Amino acid sequence: MHASFEPKLRSWVSYQEDTDFPIQNIPFGVASNGAETKCCVSRIGNYVIDLAKLHMLDAFNGILLPPRIFDHDSLNPFIALGKEITSIVRMRLINILALDSPHHDLKRASNEWLIPIESVILHLPVEIGDYTDFYSSIEHATNVGTMFRDASNPLLPNWKHLPVGYHGRASSIFVSGHSFPRPKGQLKPDDGPPIFGPSTQMDFELEMGFIVGKQTNPGESVPIAKAENYIFGLALFNDWSARDIQKWEYVPLGPFLGKNFASTVSPWIVTLEALEPFRTAGPHQDPEVLPYLKAEGHFNYDIELEVAIQPENSAPSVVSRTNFKYMYWSMVQQLAHHTVNGCNIRIGDLYASGTISGPTPDSLGSLLELSWKGTREVSLAQGETRKFLKDGDTVILKGRGKKEGVSIGFGECSAKLLPPN
Amino acid sequence: MHASFEPKLRSWVSYQEDTDFPIQNIPFGVASNGAETKCCVSRIGNYVIDLAKLHMLDAFNGILLPPRIFDHDSLNPFIALGKEITSIVRMRLINILALDSPHHDLKRASNEWLIPIESVILHLPVEIGDYTDFYSSIEHATNVGTMFRDASNPLLPNWKHLPVGYHGRASSIFVSGHSFPRPKGQLKPDDGPPIFGPSTQMDFELEMGFIVGKQTNPGESVPIAKAENYIFGLALFNDWSARDIQKWEYVPLGPFLGKNFASTVSPWIVTLEALEPFRTAGPHQDPEVLPYLKAEGHFNYDIELEVAIQPENSAPSVVSRTNFKYMYWSMVQQLAHHTVNGCNIRIGDLYASGTISGPTPDSLGSLLELSWKGTREVSLAQGETRKFLKDGDTVILKGRGKKEGVSIGFGECSAKLLPPN
Repeated sequence: MHASFEPKLRSWVSYQEDTDFPIQNIPFGVASNGAETKCCVSRIGNYVIDLAKLHMLDAFNGILLPPRIFDHDSLNPFIALGKEITSIVRMRLINILALDSPHHDLKRASNEWLIPIESVILHLPVEIGDYTDFYSSIEHATNVGTMFRDASNPLLPNWKHLPVGYHGRASSIFVSGHSFPRPKGQLKPDDGPPIFGPSTQMDFELEMGFIVGKQTNPGESVPIAKAENYIFGLALFNDWSARDIQKWEYVPLGPFLGKNFASTVSPWIVTLEALEPFRTAGPHQDPEVLPYLKAEGHFNYDIELEVAIQPENSAPSVVSRTNFKYMYWSMVQQLAHHTVNGCNIRIGDLYASGTISGPTPDSLGSLLELSWKGTREVSLAQGETRKFLKDGDTVILKGRGKKEGVSIGFGECSAKLLPPN
Repeated sequence: MHASFEPKLRSWVSYQEDTDFPIQNIPFGVASNGAETKCCVSRIGNYVIDLAKLHMLDAFNGILLPPRIFDHDSLNPFIALGKEITSIVRMRLINILALDSPHHDLKRASNEWLIPIESVILHLPVEIGDYTDFYSSIEHATNVGTMFRDASNPLLPNWKHLPVGYHGRASSIFVSGHSFPRPKGQLKPDDGPPIFGPSTQMDFELEMGFIVGKQTNPGESVPIAKAENYIFGLALFNDWSARDIQKWEYVPLGPFLGKNFASTVSPWIVTLEALEPFRTAGPHQDPEVLPYLKAEGHFNYDIELEVAIQPENSAPSVVSRTNFKYMYWSMVQQLAHHTVNGCNIRIGDLYASGTISGPTPDSLGSLLELSWKGTREVSLAQGETRKFLKDGDTVILKGRGKKEGVSIGFGECSAKLLPPN
């Protein structure tokens, strides 16, 4: 058994020391291999682990797994088995892959279930019923409030009392690697009526998202002390934004067409168990929050994040480095708040953090903030600069926790902005 | 063939003249019969039509229908066949049910597929991927703006330029007949910090919703001239609201926990074809809208609507009578706007109108307006009054078009507010 974090653990599968996917990670995803149908997979180094094939090879004997549980085009049926099962499956995978693995037959048959990452296509890992986006970085909310409202009083009165959030569009969440046209919509010049055209203020938002692992019944609330049981794992998330469309449309009911044309999620769900070594304290909350939002313990995660912009036919330039640990509102607070009114949650629901900005000018999670509303240029390699995104730009998010020489990461969350249709 | 509206058409199934479900309606829904699994159904008078059984009896021969297309727990697979098929199925049903039906064998076997409404349970008719709520009644938006902002300038600058909307929560949409506890949440007294407790300002919102009948690809826009092809049919919708929770939370990202605890949809999707006789002109739009929102023709529907409140152990009292025809923004405008940025839509998506208020004090679609923010009592029968809803209240929405002695209606959209958990 390899349940807790063992930084010295090695695998018989070879991988680079700084991979996002060492034996300590073992995330979950969905892949297909050419014309084959999709199935649930895991990953180590640069290999995808075919879980359906491993199951057929009896790798999970002794675990109460339904026969074809990995033969699905989403992880939802697997996640629905509950953490009691999914965490044991992950531990079994670690045991199978460990240098001291007792599973000699499986190791010998590894060419049947270890597939080079280059030869598979990765898909959206979960079927997302509902997607909620929060606004939980105090640095981001302060920056936006300073820019658009009142620099001396940037946060609205509710901001420190509850994790502000809104419902987003689930249909337009795509897995890393897609591309999408620059959205068109209504834009409002300062000096005239609205016009119709492509957005001229295209932006990314660096976020993390968590995937719900346990459903609730309508009318039921998740107590904050139990909220972690409802979180299966995390992914990187880019909540693309058209700032000019958003600015004109968003009062009084919130963001709509400025957001819902596309969002991008990374292909790997890294489990909460794998991220346990990176647990850390969140910022002090003052004023004190109401009791339903109070929890004993550390619920933030020390995950280094970065954003790179890659212009067409050019190299990527990192434009921001920040950390998930800065979040003012934690995931357990978000979940306790979201369900306190009895709103039911379903397996696969995605809850995104909102833009994650840090305290320094080079740790801001959006171009809106990096270019300060388009008032300054952000420098890229080869003399390129950006205030907002140009057609052909690919935005690449990365994230990883690091401890005792081990990195546990998410791979890439990347997508490309095409010219308007 | 009975394709167009034939008010004189009669059925061999007997029903009351003022039924919502004459032979001219033939809506679609999902039902189960005791322990049996769910299947797709239609309705005439007080009988449910078992479409799966009719299909087995070869009632749809000559129509390209997959073998077990009605053996599903949602209408989505059926709707996905496209209007070319679904409208022919509806016409075939009308032919089978007509007094002059040539389908003598089916008529003789009617006890196999005509089931009294009392002996079935009705379910959510579609699997709703995404739910969007608009804010398209100018009377409602004006009332809300007058109450909360500026009576001399109640509409925000964007309101007449685009159909304002926001994403809602799909997981908590339930079919008529459910009940739910009064939601709890943060409430902000005028003179102190927020407190936690049950909402004291529970309200209904009288709305109509349409169901998407044709999907789009990401990046694709639906031109307004073709938007009707993407609308399968309509239902009644109650977007329950906790006004006090909403008031404190909603800036700057819109409604969230004040809405997402529950919404109620009527069990029958009435097709756009059945509602054709009630098509009517919408209000004149001034200022002129942008070209992508302009359409030639009449796109509003003359559907009489009413709301009744039924206190525990008491009779229902109608508190509002209004009409769907008042909508400033039509459904085709909503759909063209929603997709103009390339946001993809899926079969089963639900688009609600927003609260439908009329021009007179007795035609307002929410208690917020009827009680004018709780400043006046709304009278019910037996001396009862309401400013907002009490525990035990059932709210019942009804809607019907009437023409040449024929009513085409939606049945009831009803749900009961229970005490807080």
